Amino acid sequence: MPEMKSIVMQDGRLWLENIPMPAPGPGQVLVKSRACGICGSDLHITRHTREVFQLYAAIGIVNPDATADPRIMLGHEFSAEVVAYGPDTDQTLPVGSRVTSVPFLLSEGVELGVGVTPAVHGAYSEYFLLQETLLLPIPDNVPDEAAAMAEPLAVGLHAVNRAAVAKDNVALVAGCGPIGLACIVALRMQGVQTIIASDPRADKLAVALQFGATHTVNPSTDDEMAMCATLAGDQRSVIFECVGVAALVPDFLQRAPQKSCVVFTGIHTADITFNVAFATVKELDVRFSYYYQPGEFADALQSLADGEVDWNAMCTGKVGIDGVPDAFDVLLKPNDHIKVIVEPWRSGSLETL
Amino acid sequence: MPEMKSIVMQDGRLWLENIPMPAPGPGQVLVKSRACGICGSDLHITRHTREVFQLYAAIGIVNPDATADPRIMLGHEFSAEVVAYGPDTDQTLPVGSRVTSVPFLLSEGVELGVGVTPAVHGAYSEYFLLQETLLLPIPDNVPDEAAAMAEPLAVGLHAVNRAAVAKDNVALVAGCGPIGLACIVALRMQGVQTIIASDPRADKLAVALQFGATHTVNPSTDDEMAMCATLAGDQRSVIFECVGVAALVPDFLQRAPQKSCVVFTGIHTADITFNVAFATVKELDVRFSYYYQPGEFADALQSLADGEVDWNAMCTGKVGIDGVPDAFDVLLKPNDHIKVIVEPWRSGSLETL
Repeated sequence: MPEMKSIVMQDGRLWLENIPMPAPGPGQVLVKSRACGICGSDLHITRHTREVFQLYAAIGIVNPDATADPRIMLGHEFSAEVVAYGPDTDQTLPVGSRVTSVPFLLSEGVELGVGVTPAVHGAYSEYFLLQETLLLPIPDNVPDEAAAMAEPLAVGLHAVNRAAVAKDNVALVAGCGPIGLACIVALRMQGVQTIIASDPRADKLAVALQFGATHTVNPSTDDEMAMCATLAGDQRSVIFECVGVAALVPDFLQRAPQKSCVVFTGIHTADITFNVAFATVKELDVRFSYYYQPGEFADALQSLADGEVDWNAMCTGKVGIDGVPDAFDVLLKPNDHIKVIVEPWRSGSLETL
Repeated sequence: MPEMKSIVMQDGRLWLENIPMPAPGPGQVLVKSRACGICGSDLHITRHTREVFQLYAAIGIVNPDATADPRIMLGHEFSAEVVAYGPDTDQTLPVGSRVTSVPFLLSEGVELGVGVTPAVHGAYSEYFLLQETLLLPIPDNVPDEAAAMAEPLAVGLHAVNRAAVAKDNVALVAGCGPIGLACIVALRMQGVQTIIASDPRADKLAVALQFGATHTVNPSTDDEMAMCATLAGDQRSVIFECVGVAALVPDFLQRAPQKSCVVFTGIHTADITFNVAFATVKELDVRFSYYYQPGEFADALQSLADGEVDWNAMCTGKVGIDGVPDAFDVLLKPNDHIKVIVEPWRSGSLETL
């Protein structure tokens, strides 16, 4: 059986390993990974593997037996190329076609997450499997590293759709990493007139302005919630938490403006404590956002083809497959990156662009 | 200066006191209290006065100096009768008219809560003050004790409006006290086809059916959330927390069905701890509801005039002004009452109807 290289994560450590190349089952396609983004959730699951899996088991989205030292092949924001079809496939797209997909495989009716479910190959591998029915061809004018950003863009689009933001609402996007920028793109494309970007870093605020923010604020020196309330006046305020720090959940519920909508995009797995009275007397509308619909993923890919996304400004680094473990070490500490793209078909250490 | 009787609450104790009759200021009206409901929030504030006021000060809805042993004249669900007008009033309603109002006085542009703000007279007093511009005449066919229920009915109507419930949504009303019953009335009047009432007491479920519930469930023996999810199928589930127990906040967030809307009507003042991941992976939509709009209060009063509310089934006890302290002792322990009405113009101990 042919072998391939794959990044394996277990017990907080990552390494490069030679593993058997997977064979596509019925309805599946073997693809070659061309580019894959490193997501904040990859960093989080690396740092807190057992905590995350124990919680997933409690919620019922993984089996309890999956929590015992799970071994994960990461990578779920990808561009790929069709290599071979499994049985029971239509084979509409020729071998060699560039494709992306929502990161799910279907196995006997169960959704398995590509890049997160143990034993399912992720896109930090030379090859992995996708579901034929979920494939989307990548438009010719969208480079591999751009198409890999359809996934985080879909997360932002879904968060904006979850909040049903109207054009005259005032949006505050807290945190200008990839998800915050994705929210800003979606808000701008939906015609929202006032988009406040909040981040303690001036360089990230500069990118937020390029992406369509109309105002910026540094929350370590200014009160971003007060700014939002002032700009909103009698209009609805919608606040997007895109920082991914659990302590911000009670902080935002305590500080959000009267009658505002607060959307949490982060997948927080720590317990938080707060006093419900703050949310009650302000009549908050709190919406939790998770993943996206397939149509939103397709819309995000189309927005890249339409030139609506300055994806180049988001892509701050590239790394070959053998450089991934060291790149994680860099990204798990404070750093200047927005999105680092893994190119699993080559070797090489992390380069800042 | 003429005196009157009033129930005063301080440091967890209530007593009857003779105090000076208030004089109406500009825009205000002196009214005689004809009936006033005892609300769960009156019981809660009696038990947790300092905790509630310290939290209100932290939130900014009372001054910090109001937290030092506040002395409160309770009563905010009332029917009254116009006695005398203050200066700068239009005096459209003749003296003797029966009136109700949202329980607010305006003083130099600041809203003061009738029956909660210290030094503002409540309706467990022989006389109190209202704002002329907020007065609503009570229709002739609505008895005093029924009109006093416009306030809790407005709380339920507002909660239902906050959730924007559609007719084909499945509503679960948890807790069949006055607020739960008010939600059921509002849901039924808005044409919602499936209304599940949840309460551990069979007698309360029987009243819920009279009010318009289509299904009942005992949450101590059956899983009310599973029942809601099953009845909803692909339709939206909307869950109304009307129990008023803080521990149900994390419990409901953990157990609510996938993609449901959870409305908290209780004013919880205790810290709660929960793991956001439960709300995230289910994409919950969590709405906090507090008070009502004046138009909703007027609609609630109109629903009583239209015979839409079986208010008699809700009114389980009556008490004279001197019987209020003992009635609180009864109501602060487990008891069979739904709504007890104070008649401050007479004496007498709590009678069960």
